[in-house]
Amino acid sequence: MQSEQAFNLKVYLSEKKAIVDRALEIYLPKPEGPAYDLIRAMRYSVFAGGKRLRPILCIAGCETVGSAGADVLPVACALELIHTYSLIHDDLPVMDDDDLRRGKPTNHKVFGEATALLAGDGLLTEAFALMTRSDLLERISTDLILKVTGMIAHAAGYRGMVGGQIVDIQSEGKVMDFPVVEFIHTHKTGALITSSVASGAILGGGDESQLEAITSYGRKIGLAFQISDDILDIEGDSKTIGKNVGADEQKRKTTYPTVAGLGRSKEIQLKLVEEAIDSLRAFDYRAEPLRRVARYIIERKK
Amino acid sequence: MQSEQAFNLKVYLSEKKAIVDRALEIYLPKPEGPAYDLIRAMRYSVFAGGKRLRPILCIAGCETVGSAGADVLPVACALELIHTYSLIHDDLPVMDDDDLRRGKPTNHKVFGEATALLAGDGLLTEAFALMTRSDLLERISTDLILKVTGMIAHAAGYRGMVGGQIVDIQSEGKVMDFPVVEFIHTHKTGALITSSVASGAILGGGDESQLEAITSYGRKIGLAFQISDDILDIEGDSKTIGKNVGADEQKRKTTYPTVAGLGRSKEIQLKLVEEAIDSLRAFDYRAEPLRRVARYIIERKK
Repeated sequence: MQSEQAFNLKVYLSEKKAIVDRALEIYLPKPEGPAYDLIRAMRYSVFAGGKRLRPILCIAGCETVGSAGADVLPVACALELIHTYSLIHDDLPVMDDDDLRRGKPTNHKVFGEATALLAGDGLLTEAFALMTRSDLLERISTDLILKVTGMIAHAAGYRGMVGGQIVDIQSEGKVMDFPVVEFIHTHKTGALITSSVASGAILGGGDESQLEAITSYGRKIGLAFQISDDILDIEGDSKTIGKNVGADEQKRKTTYPTVAGLGRSKEIQLKLVEEAIDSLRAFDYRAEPLRRVARYIIERKK
Repeated sequence: MQSEQAFNLKVYLSEKKAIVDRALEIYLPKPEGPAYDLIRAMRYSVFAGGKRLRPILCIAGCETVGSAGADVLPVACALELIHTYSLIHDDLPVMDDDDLRRGKPTNHKVFGEATALLAGDGLLTEAFALMTRSDLLERISTDLILKVTGMIAHAAGYRGMVGGQIVDIQSEGKVMDFPVVEFIHTHKTGALITSSVASGAILGGGDESQLEAITSYGRKIGLAFQISDDILDIEGDSKTIGKNVGADEQKRKTTYPTVAGLGRSKEIQLKLVEEAIDSLRAFDYRAEPLRRVARYIIERKK
């Protein structure tokens, strides 16, 4: 645990990532039994080097309202399973057809398309098994668990992530205007990021005004995060980000830099981060991780 | 409502199907907004002529323990969404590569593979959004809703349906022994059928011994149902069942008739149905729908 004075984001992220990784190791099944290959494929992508941003946001959301982050680990990990499933399905040949993810061969490249499809299905389903485990979430009321489960399902489904994904796929190779790009970003990535930090705050017992502030923070950084992804695809280093730079342009994807220009995109991103931090003004030092994560979005190299 | 004396299964199934269809129409989103095509694809398969067996089992499970089936409609419909998602993904070219389902072109034949994949993802996710809607399930405690949600997630995921699916895919074209075929059947189809009737009984407030009896019933009819699918694939009429007869043999799928012979498969199926009905011996006339559904499995032509 770090003190208020010496907050170091790098140490914070690394400590929380280690906690999430250990929990995922415990929650995910061991590769054994008749479904051995399925479980191996599920584990492969979960342990392929994710930053654990969504779980960390969930934990930080919970700690910001003054509760113990450890209490929400099952939900935090469930969010990572949903994120991972979306990457596996996204990478499939019928979708983005990507061979490389975080510097490693994508799931279907290693296990084949059928197994990758089922590994995604398995992870999405297991996310809901995990987040409804009242035995693991014993310090949280079933009412709050149910509320959060519904909220995450909304964020992951046609109203959120899957809705953003269909519009993204349909937009490839077409000239899109600003509102469409914004729709894709806020839905495909933003919705799950927002519900990550909001779910932590709800499970931690945050009151209405706290939830409102944290949800506003989540919306801002969710969009800022996706804009930084677009910028990294232009300015980043392939080795550092673990996938091919320029992939968006190659696939003729419409991104923030395409519709707003690179300079304007950076301005929008900066403004979103400032507004996100401002949303948290009513909170004390316990919101420091969330404030620093917001700044990190602009600074990150991968 | 039918009286105890004049129970007519055909009328019962048709009445319940109409109730489920109306509820699905209300719960599913209208095709509008940017994700229009996704919603259209989701609705296409949901309204492509399913028998609504799983929702009806959920309602019947609830009514068997003496509660009102209408109270569990959101969960009943969620089960149908999970079933439908599994069919859409199952039919994809990387899986079974089927062009026809219930006499209609499969989802990817109409909407393309990317949209079909996402329609499946959207339905699976929406199922969890629906079954956690405490506003719709207002007569049921959040504890029971959470318990049922977890149980259904287990039945649909790697421990159940997806686990059965991976073994099924891996077995194609290989000579399989009886235990493997039984594993596929009990997991790929059986698990969700069992949890359909069990979830109704749990939500309806059934006690431990009632749940045990109804779960046993579910296991038996789940397996019997899949065996009847295998038998229909040999003896059925393509027009009646809405897909090509002999598809299993063509794909070199190992089925019950393959490992046990057609005659022995029918014997096993009959025994399972008798045992299922016997599991319900402690219940009164309210279990009559479940008893009759069990017998229907042997008699059905599609």
